[in-house]
Amino acid sequence: MAEDEQIPATRAALGKARMEAFSDGVLAIAITLLVLDLALRPPGSPLEQFLRDWPAYLVYLVSFLTIGAAWVAHNSLTDDLDHVDRVFLRLNLLFLLTVSFLPFPTRIVGDALEKSTSWQRVAVTVFGITVLATRLVFAAMATYARHEHLRRAGTPDRDLQDAQQKFRVAVSLYVGAIALGLLFPIVAIVLYFGVAVFLVVPFHAVAQVLVRGRRENAKE
Amino acid sequence: MAEDEQIPATRAALGKARMEAFSDGVLAIAITLLVLDLALRPPGSPLEQFLRDWPAYLVYLVSFLTIGAAWVAHNSLTDDLDHVDRVFLRLNLLFLLTVSFLPFPTRIVGDALEKSTSWQRVAVTVFGITVLATRLVFAAMATYARHEHLRRAGTPDRDLQDAQQKFRVAVSLYVGAIALGLLFPIVAIVLYFGVAVFLVVPFHAVAQVLVRGRRENAKE
Amino acid sequence: MAEDEQIPATRAALGKARMEAFSDGVLAIAITLLVLDLALRPPGSPLEQFLRDWPAYLVYLVSFLTIGAAWVAHNSLTDDLDHVDRVFLRLNLLFLLTVSFLPFPTRIVGDALEKSTSWQRVAVTVFGITVLATRLVFAAMATYARHEHLRRAGTPDRDLQDAQQKFRVAVSLYVGAIALGLLFPIVAIVLYFGVAVFLVVPFHAVAQVLVRGRRENAKE
Amino acid sequence: MAEDEQIPATRAALGKARMEAFSDGVLAIAITLLVLDLALRPPGSPLEQFLRDWPAYLVYLVSFLTIGAAWVAHNSLTDDLDHVDRVFLRLNLLFLLTVSFLPFPTRIVGDALEKSTSWQRVAVTVFGITVLATRLVFAAMATYARHEHLRRAGTPDRDLQDAQQKFRVAVSLYVGAIALGLLFPIVAIVLYFGVAVFLVVPFHAVAQVLVRGRRENAKE
Repeated sequence: MAEDEQIPATRAALGKARMEAFSDGVLAIAITLLVLDLALRPPGSPLEQFLRDWPAYLVYLVSFLTIGAAWVAHNSLTDDLDHVDRVFLRLNLLFLLTVSFLPFPTRIVGDALEKSTSWQRVAVTVFGITVLATRLVFAAMATYARHEHLRRAGTPDRDLQDAQQKFRVAVSLYVGAIALGLLFPIVAIVLYFGVAVFLVVPFHAVAQVLVRGRRENAKE
Repeated sequence: MAEDEQIPATRAALGKARMEAFSDGVLAIAITLLVLDLALRPPGSPLEQFLRDWPAYLVYLVSFLTIGAAWVAHNSLTDDLDHVDRVFLRLNLLFLLTVSFLPFPTRIVGDALEKSTSWQRVAVTVFGITVLATRLVFAAMATYARHEHLRRAGTPDRDLQDAQQKFRVAVSLYVGAIALGLLFPIVAIVLYFGVAVFLVVPFHAVAQVLVRGRRENAKE
Repeated sequence: MAEDEQIPATRAALGKARMEAFSDGVLAIAITLLVLDLALRPPGSPLEQFLRDWPAYLVYLVSFLTIGAAWVAHNSLTDDLDHVDRVFLRLNLLFLLTVSFLPFPTRIVGDALEKSTSWQRVAVTVFGITVLATRLVFAAMATYARHEHLRRAGTPDRDLQDAQQKFRVAVSLYVGAIALGLLFPIVAIVLYFGVAVFLVVPFHAVAQVLVRGRRENAKE
Repeated sequence: MAEDEQIPATRAALGKARMEAFSDGVLAIAITLLVLDLALRPPGSPLEQFLRDWPAYLVYLVSFLTIGAAWVAHNSLTDDLDHVDRVFLRLNLLFLLTVSFLPFPTRIVGDALEKSTSWQRVAVTVFGITVLATRLVFAAMATYARHEHLRRAGTPDRDLQDAQQKFRVAVSLYVGAIALGLLFPIVAIVLYFGVAVFLVVPFHAVAQVLVRGRRENAKE
């Protein structure tokens, strides 16, 4: 964007810093608000109520990990940028919209668990479409950044490479989970949990740490 | 302000940085809290409840985009400042008051949708006055900054130029929407949505990206 | 504190930066959460409900301005610091406790308005004690900083000087308002509003701007 | 981690800065959200309702201090780091999960106070397991940082040394309090309060300040 490239480097950097600060704020709030919708639901003894609600805790965990993975990926993407432009700022706003909307489907899934299966189907489908939208908007941001040469020279961050490699798999799994959720909503939640773990865990890095740990133990 | 200009540059810059951090925090929280008031409202089947509530989602989106546009404009205004003074800090506080109040009218509009038209009129009018106040206080901040020479030399940021060019149009449309809302509250919500899109989308920049994209495709 | 002065300057500065970031976060959230407790309360027509609740909006405004004034004063105090030590970090935590508690008394005052006067007395007294505690803990932070030589050389920030000059007056008025609130709770709220305006408005700076504005108009 | 050590210092520092900003956000929100669950509970006169609820305020205070102590320790740990790697970022996410979950047990303890002892037992046990988990995950972060050589050369921050010295005591006390809470839930809450005070107060530093204050008084 011609008018953005003419502004001095410090200005562009400032704009990026505030975009990061605002995004960190929104992501931090969305991830923390999730806890407000956890609740014990009668009937039953206290322990029964606490334990019977396991799918609600699972959905809480899925949303927490999904937003956590979104933060890790966002972090890596913006670290990689040299500057941002006006269109990117708006794409970022759209990304924040999908993430900050996530507490709503999380809550309706939690509420639906004690209702009929038809409730669960609607709730789990809305949930699935939201997490899918989060991924798609993020991919749009990454594509725009590459296309408009917003990125720095050099190899991108490993977390960003990972996010891009995992993208097609995650989208396919999300589409599958949305379809599955129309029949077996609880099973779909377990699948969403699997995808969230797949997105957030850096398997290669964890393996390296474990291997190195074993070698050091062997030396001693 | 004499006593502010005497303090060293780093002090002034620090004051500006914390004003930005605090403002980012308030705007990020206000934009994320909006989701707390989304709710499914009986009666009806799950899907009916979800779909019947479209005006509530529209109001949510309008408020999200309005706060998003306020953040983009605030970002550009403060990027453009060389330093801030004590009066500007308070104007900023007033600006944050109008923005952080917005979740309340958003919620009463959402609640009013299933009540009588007289409820909707009151709710939509309070909503309209709040978004209008947000714009007017922002304009006061920009005017004060120009008048008190708080701005850096050089051309202002494109987003700030845009915000100022769009200001009169937005205010006129808001006044029109407030009047219209007294008769047709739902129509006014659609108009508020239009204004929010008008404020947040950088049409010129988007057009450039699209034109450039087409040229590059033509070359290949 | 011996062990704090031995650490390099960058470390001390980092500690201060994160204390500011965390404090900005807590203050921004507390000030924005206030809106969650605004609500329309039956009975009556929509407009009646909206207008009858004026004391609730006034309490909202008082709390907003009180937290806003606390942020301005906190900002000036920490800007003035060269470094922070371990005790100061905890005093800061105590300060954040008093500020982040404020939404609770704000809410019970709002709820008490439609109940008996004995409710209003309890609510307004808890409110008054909280805002008084906020001031006293802030004064303890400022005193500790001066006593332990945490401050930079040079004249303190104007906002900090103001906060210190206004301190005795504010504390006296708060004590008076707490006593008054036992008899006339609504009158006490109006007095708390007066104190909040007194604390937040930089009268000297506003006067300078107005005088300068008049002179420039006279020249033209 | 090989791929992390190859990236230039500024990149690593940036990643650390955003991890701190995101963590500050989550901790600030979690600590401030606690206030949302304070409520007056009928029956009784206003003052009775306010005073009878003292265990709820105590739990609020325990959670506030526990998150405050977690922030102080986190602050010291990350200040001490030279860089962060991908595994550390995820451990940090896990730490934020335990802290941002804390408002839920805080709320169910508050609700349980007016219910049967069996409710209180379940609630206080969930509370205890959560605060224990917070400590254990923090210890895992500190151990990982030491093992993977993420830390800077030089003596660690006093707050971090303190946190590590206090760790075994705190974990033992937490395990004791969880066991005790199965029999006497209210007594366990008082014990959790004691541990929170033990964790947050820097006794050595406070003693130094007091001793120095006495000496200076003696000189005069």
